[in-house]
Amino acid sequence: MIVCKFGGTSVANAEQIKKVANIVKSNPKRKIIAVSAPGKRFGDDIKVTDLLIELADAALNNGDAAGKLQIVVNRFKEITHELGLDDAICDVIKNDLQERVASDKSNKTLFIDNIKASGEDNNAKLIAEYFNSIGLRAKYVSPKEKLILNDFPERTLALPEAYENLKDLGKDNEIVVFPGFFGYTKNGTLRTFDRGGSDITGSILAAAVKADLYENFTDVDFVFSANPKVVNNPVGISEITYREMRELSYSGFSVFHDEALMPVYKLGIPVTVKNTNNPTAPGTKIVPTRPLTGRPVTGISADSGFSILYVSKYLMNREIGFGRKLLQIIEEEHISYEHTPSGLDDISVVIRSNQLTNEVEERIVNRVKEELHADDVYFRHGLSLIVIVGEGMRNNTGLAARAASAISRTGANIEMINQGSSEVSLVFGVLQPAENQILRALYDEFFAPITV
Amino acid sequence: MIVCKFGGTSVANAEQIKKVANIVKSNPKRKIIAVSAPGKRFGDDIKVTDLLIELADAALNNGDAAGKLQIVVNRFKEITHELGLDDAICDVIKNDLQERVASDKSNKTLFIDNIKASGEDNNAKLIAEYFNSIGLRAKYVSPKEKLILNDFPERTLALPEAYENLKDLGKDNEIVVFPGFFGYTKNGTLRTFDRGGSDITGSILAAAVKADLYENFTDVDFVFSANPKVVNNPVGISEITYREMRELSYSGFSVFHDEALMPVYKLGIPVTVKNTNNPTAPGTKIVPTRPLTGRPVTGISADSGFSILYVSKYLMNREIGFGRKLLQIIEEEHISYEHTPSGLDDISVVIRSNQLTNEVEERIVNRVKEELHADDVYFRHGLSLIVIVGEGMRNNTGLAARAASAISRTGANIEMINQGSSEVSLVFGVLQPAENQILRALYDEFFAPITV
Repeated sequence: MIVCKFGGTSVANAEQIKKVANIVKSNPKRKIIAVSAPGKRFGDDIKVTDLLIELADAALNNGDAAGKLQIVVNRFKEITHELGLDDAICDVIKNDLQERVASDKSNKTLFIDNIKASGEDNNAKLIAEYFNSIGLRAKYVSPKEKLILNDFPERTLALPEAYENLKDLGKDNEIVVFPGFFGYTKNGTLRTFDRGGSDITGSILAAAVKADLYENFTDVDFVFSANPKVVNNPVGISEITYREMRELSYSGFSVFHDEALMPVYKLGIPVTVKNTNNPTAPGTKIVPTRPLTGRPVTGISADSGFSILYVSKYLMNREIGFGRKLLQIIEEEHISYEHTPSGLDDISVVIRSNQLTNEVEERIVNRVKEELHADDVYFRHGLSLIVIVGEGMRNNTGLAARAASAISRTGANIEMINQGSSEVSLVFGVLQPAENQILRALYDEFFAPITV
Repeated sequence: MIVCKFGGTSVANAEQIKKVANIVKSNPKRKIIAVSAPGKRFGDDIKVTDLLIELADAALNNGDAAGKLQIVVNRFKEITHELGLDDAICDVIKNDLQERVASDKSNKTLFIDNIKASGEDNNAKLIAEYFNSIGLRAKYVSPKEKLILNDFPERTLALPEAYENLKDLGKDNEIVVFPGFFGYTKNGTLRTFDRGGSDITGSILAAAVKADLYENFTDVDFVFSANPKVVNNPVGISEITYREMRELSYSGFSVFHDEALMPVYKLGIPVTVKNTNNPTAPGTKIVPTRPLTGRPVTGISADSGFSILYVSKYLMNREIGFGRKLLQIIEEEHISYEHTPSGLDDISVVIRSNQLTNEVEERIVNRVKEELHADDVYFRHGLSLIVIVGEGMRNNTGLAARAASAISRTGANIEMINQGSSEVSLVFGVLQPAENQILRALYDEFFAPITV
């Protein structure tokens, strides 16, 4: 069995939904599809999810809720008409939305969740109806009493019983159309995953039914080896391991929501990223392991917005517990960190700058000075991390030399280097203004066509 | 005022002690000298301290204590005769040793400390007597009631009052001859510093009197830029910062005991390492800061005997507190670590292998698996760390590229790279068999004579 997920642009209008139907029809193993809310039809378009957020906002703040609601209904109406479906489904959608808007507003987060989730929920109903209208036997399945989530205000996670509840999905003759992005707590409260969470729904479904494959349909032919906004025509990746995919997830590889692969990863279910608009292209396959190819590097990602907390103390390395105490201070500020490069008497903590404020920085600096008696403590900002990733980097003598040489040819200074014993990734810290130039230089070094 | 410390080989016999006298005479600012016990006179010789450990062992285990005691007295007798001193001092030394041997043995560590310390103590008495015999006004000063230490069984440290007690030393017309290596607790119990601790005594004295300079006399013309046992004729270092010295202290730079510089570092007192056998050579100066020279790298050290604990877990980097909890487990085993290179989903902890046993490793691996739910946890052994150090490495574009290229030319693989934001050091982890070859390759890269 194959579980497919269709992203926002794949279900943005009637034309796209017809493509989805053809894709599902073309392979009888495609028995379960998770769908997003209608996304952008063109560059400046507004996603239905964003329209719904506006609606929720209007409902909460005495705005023009009725007007906002009608805009959403009109988006669905347009799709319904173009698909040649009966208007009745639009009444269902309108009633559903009105009920949601009229619902309990005492918990704003849950209220907004409920409104937002209607995009996926109603789109799933609509798509199931369309499939049946063209003779493709399908049914809409609600996540209710199936995709069970933990309670508010914990960060949304599926509970183990969700997998048990969903395990028989797709076993009869109908195609299951399942709305992405949300589920329900044990007591029936709707909650949404983080944004982009339709990927998670698809992944949970694939894991629950122990699918042979999880196909993630989006609007690119494959995952690129580097950000195409920076590198000209980057090579597409045909096969990549879970681990490589994770290491690349810093940026420029926003195909997947960070946690989305977890359920399939645990079971080793392969994933393909495919293009709804070009479904015969092989796409990018994400697998537990892969044979090594001639190219040691699979991809290069780059991301800006990092800060470094630098701490030095004479004889630091003789003090058992120093690093642990430092990380404890960071943890008590609820801050996550990326790397901790160190010398004998100094340690740096690389942190995403968006977690820092002047007050947080001051508190951390003061605590490190007072509690750890450090000699020198300060923050530096404006760093970018460039990550070179590839299973083939292991035992590839000279790779670090090639990378560092390529960077040095740009004239940029390397602020930080981090290579762990896994050797699947090599991280460079550089100043942000040099980021793009370095990414291009590294791409040229490792992906230049081999000339004979 | 200058405080001098003379190491074991500098006071090994009469000839060496005469050199010491000449050195002290040649500069009237040299008012305080800390002395070691007589060291080796030739390659296979036995240090007095080692003879004393044998004596203590014999005294504790009903061995031939009288015979061992006589061997020690004979070493001093030989020196006394060759210096043309009266035999009376040897009787003083013999009586002193007999009293120590007869002392309370209920605490073996303190008993051994007391015997060991007699080497420095009696040598200081002998040297003071010799100085006076040649018209150099000098006095032996005991650490008793001056160099106050913390109580057994804490690791030996000087208490703050030691500095207060010693601050007027050297202010009269006599040269102070102070035995290195030991002090006394508040209740008068003798304790020794870790081995090599005469460096600490000298450093404490220099800090207490706020000396202009701390001269550390040993048997090399300077600190070498790389281990001369591996690299042929390495360049000597003329000036080095405290920080560089610390970063190099992994190995091949065993000139200083690790903690010895702490007291002078705190006050910014410069230190010179000089050769008793060639005192006009400028030696190596250790300073708080130094002007940058043309050469970015000051020294390269290498050390073997490291292990790596490798831990991977899917989505590790989203788990606030993971790194801290891992370090806490290491800390609870009383293990110190060197570096923690990391990827997004993996972290390695570099540990000195001598802290590990099969049981410790098993305990750590089990705890990390069970408490942190890691996917993969294992130890790797047989690693060497190579550390390139230099204040001039900061902002030296291309340095990491040069280093990595030099390593790759040896054909060796780089297992780990660590460069913090201080950029004073760059650490490479390599497999031990490649260590010496890599050290030579890096030395050639950064210290090859500049050919025109």
